[in-house]
Amino acid sequence: MISASVCTIGDEILIGQIVDTNSAHISKSLNSIGIKVSRILSISDDRDDICNSLSHELQVNDVVITTGGLGPTKDDITKGVLAELSHAKGWVMHEEQLAVVHRILHSRGLDVMPINIAQASVPDSCEVIVNRKGTAPILVFRLPEELFGHPVTLYSMPGVPFETLAALPEVLEDIKAHHELTHITHRNVMTFSLAESALAELIAPWENALDEDMHLAYLPNTLTGVKLRLSIYGGDEEDNQRRIAAKIEALKAILGPVIYAEEEDTMEHVLGSLLARNGKTMCAAESCTGGMISHLMTTIPGASTYYLGSVTSYANEVKTGVLGVSPETLEKFGAVSSETAAEMAEGVRKITGADYAVSTTGIAGPDGGTTEKPVGTCWIGVSSAAGTETAEVHFSGDRKRNIERFAASALDTLRKKVISELIN
Amino acid sequence: MISASVCTIGDEILIGQIVDTNSAHISKSLNSIGIKVSRILSISDDRDDICNSLSHELQVNDVVITTGGLGPTKDDITKGVLAELSHAKGWVMHEEQLAVVHRILHSRGLDVMPINIAQASVPDSCEVIVNRKGTAPILVFRLPEELFGHPVTLYSMPGVPFETLAALPEVLEDIKAHHELTHITHRNVMTFSLAESALAELIAPWENALDEDMHLAYLPNTLTGVKLRLSIYGGDEEDNQRRIAAKIEALKAILGPVIYAEEEDTMEHVLGSLLARNGKTMCAAESCTGGMISHLMTTIPGASTYYLGSVTSYANEVKTGVLGVSPETLEKFGAVSSETAAEMAEGVRKITGADYAVSTTGIAGPDGGTTEKPVGTCWIGVSSAAGTETAEVHFSGDRKRNIERFAASALDTLRKKVISELIN
Repeated sequence: MISASVCTIGDEILIGQIVDTNSAHISKSLNSIGIKVSRILSISDDRDDICNSLSHELQVNDVVITTGGLGPTKDDITKGVLAELSHAKGWVMHEEQLAVVHRILHSRGLDVMPINIAQASVPDSCEVIVNRKGTAPILVFRLPEELFGHPVTLYSMPGVPFETLAALPEVLEDIKAHHELTHITHRNVMTFSLAESALAELIAPWENALDEDMHLAYLPNTLTGVKLRLSIYGGDEEDNQRRIAAKIEALKAILGPVIYAEEEDTMEHVLGSLLARNGKTMCAAESCTGGMISHLMTTIPGASTYYLGSVTSYANEVKTGVLGVSPETLEKFGAVSSETAAEMAEGVRKITGADYAVSTTGIAGPDGGTTEKPVGTCWIGVSSAAGTETAEVHFSGDRKRNIERFAASALDTLRKKVISELIN
Repeated sequence: MISASVCTIGDEILIGQIVDTNSAHISKSLNSIGIKVSRILSISDDRDDICNSLSHELQVNDVVITTGGLGPTKDDITKGVLAELSHAKGWVMHEEQLAVVHRILHSRGLDVMPINIAQASVPDSCEVIVNRKGTAPILVFRLPEELFGHPVTLYSMPGVPFETLAALPEVLEDIKAHHELTHITHRNVMTFSLAESALAELIAPWENALDEDMHLAYLPNTLTGVKLRLSIYGGDEEDNQRRIAAKIEALKAILGPVIYAEEEDTMEHVLGSLLARNGKTMCAAESCTGGMISHLMTTIPGASTYYLGSVTSYANEVKTGVLGVSPETLEKFGAVSSETAAEMAEGVRKITGADYAVSTTGIAGPDGGTTEKPVGTCWIGVSSAAGTETAEVHFSGDRKRNIERFAASALDTLRKKVISELIN
């Protein structure tokens, strides 16, 4: 199996100013095309550090991908060090990248200075993938056996996440075109509402009956639930696809609506698409989730076609005054109750005119819990013309995780209601 | 200067399933006590990988911190490899950690199995910092010169971020107690509303007049603005503090309300504290920010004392029906206008009864922009009994970044209004 190393260059990560999200994206993509990532490392903008670390990675991997250190200022030295490592004899101007440099600076109303032009100059020892989103090109060094003991390819990518992500597909295509990859067939299934252990117990007979060459991974996430990934390494792709599809059909029969998507997806996107396909609209009334449901739904471009709006009713006066929850309900059952959740959902549906409403009222913590209603308790309400239902969930995370799990659970509860009432 | 390496052990990061946030937290903390982080790396749960990588890091650093690979299952092999690397002669049961193991499992209603008890067993070559939040103890190996060419300390921490963060202060104290650290005096100042370049231009005379030994760093963030960090390495701490304080007073005279906090802080926390101190309340009416303002405000425990709630009015019908924006205003000026922003803020203040209201209406993108109102345009409204004002902002990020910048700008605009009306 081809092995790769992913290396970020620059001080921002080493001083903890930014979290390295690029390496996770790149590693995930490499894994998906059948490359094993042997390590991820972050090093400083220091010539010796870059030389020593990259030399080592180039000796023990088939592919090395670096990000960062390609800016126009004097502390960005990656390109010079790579010219040295690859025994470049000179520098050439890459006209296509230079045109992009001009275009980008002009669009920002800036003059093109010599340091900007230098961005398009590359060592004569590399090929170039044009960076259309930024000024620094992606450099591809195909290094011969003499240099590091075996043939190895080094890709140097820009470090700005927006540019890194945009260029990644072309880098992956280049890797596929130049390396004999072990083919991996895999399918993801997104599940929600069962913890990893409960899910594992429920599907144990199915899992135990998987073919020898099939590999199952459980990948849990607070917002998106447990992703199940079924993979086969090598073999005939068409046959693999057929075998995996059959297993997934069997899994669907066991899990039913616990599965919310048969490919990588998010709960808010699945719910949004379901509403859009059926020409329906939704709204939300949030207490303990404090705006998280609304925030999630509106992260999706075009959400305005099905998402009308929400009320965050943190104070009881907003629950009664804006949502129309009855003061008697609050008094008799408390704000965290099935009754309040139901009235919140009905109230917000009435004032927004949406087809569907979801509500949350609970205790995210760290304070505010009681023996009867401990921190981590949340009542969820869902309402439509067909009726209103409520459900209770319990979690034991910190405030942030509880808010995320409450919000995702609420969206899942609404998703199940919409499915039960519609056919698409 | 003492140098350190931070190393995560385990496959979750290498396959891109999770983003490595632990290393950023640890690196930031190490930097703050005067330790230079030379590299961050992620390696797999493989004996040879762990041995080779750690041996190298131990040779070239004064401190090595590992996280992860300490779970109870057979793929977690870190502890055994560390026993080997440190030439341990045997294993001892750490009774205090064992008591924590029992307590944690009992609280979850689980039986204590042999694999759980083994969590509290440690090599006789290390000291232990008890993990009170989890079952795997923190191991401290003080390795003599003979092993790696110089004395070096290795800390092995659990990988669950919640546990890592909880144990980090004790690890830092231990490092401080056992190493001669270069003292760093630093102060942070949080600024908002000026881009890094505009800020740099404005404070250039002040920056140029800094003492030779003072170092200024610009640390930008979408949600919290540009953090300015002023540092002095070495010297007398009391004197340094006095000199830095004088410089910061001069900076405050230049920047005025652009500075929103004189220590590390967030906009939502600063605004919340300001309201709480003055016994005032707030609410929000969100269109383009879609719930982000409400989400930010309610991430803070105890927000219910000053945060009453919000309306997300994604649809114009919610703007008119719930917030009372006049249909004529929408027709004449459009949803993205000063007039609509003002009426949204006034409307939500009226229905929630809060002292202050903030509103947003704009175009987060990627679609929906026009020549007059391009993607990245947002009108912000702020309202109180004293009156209503609006402000326009423009950004050029993707949807996610625009939403974050709109929300943070709205909170900053409200903060300035509250300050102008109150004395605390």
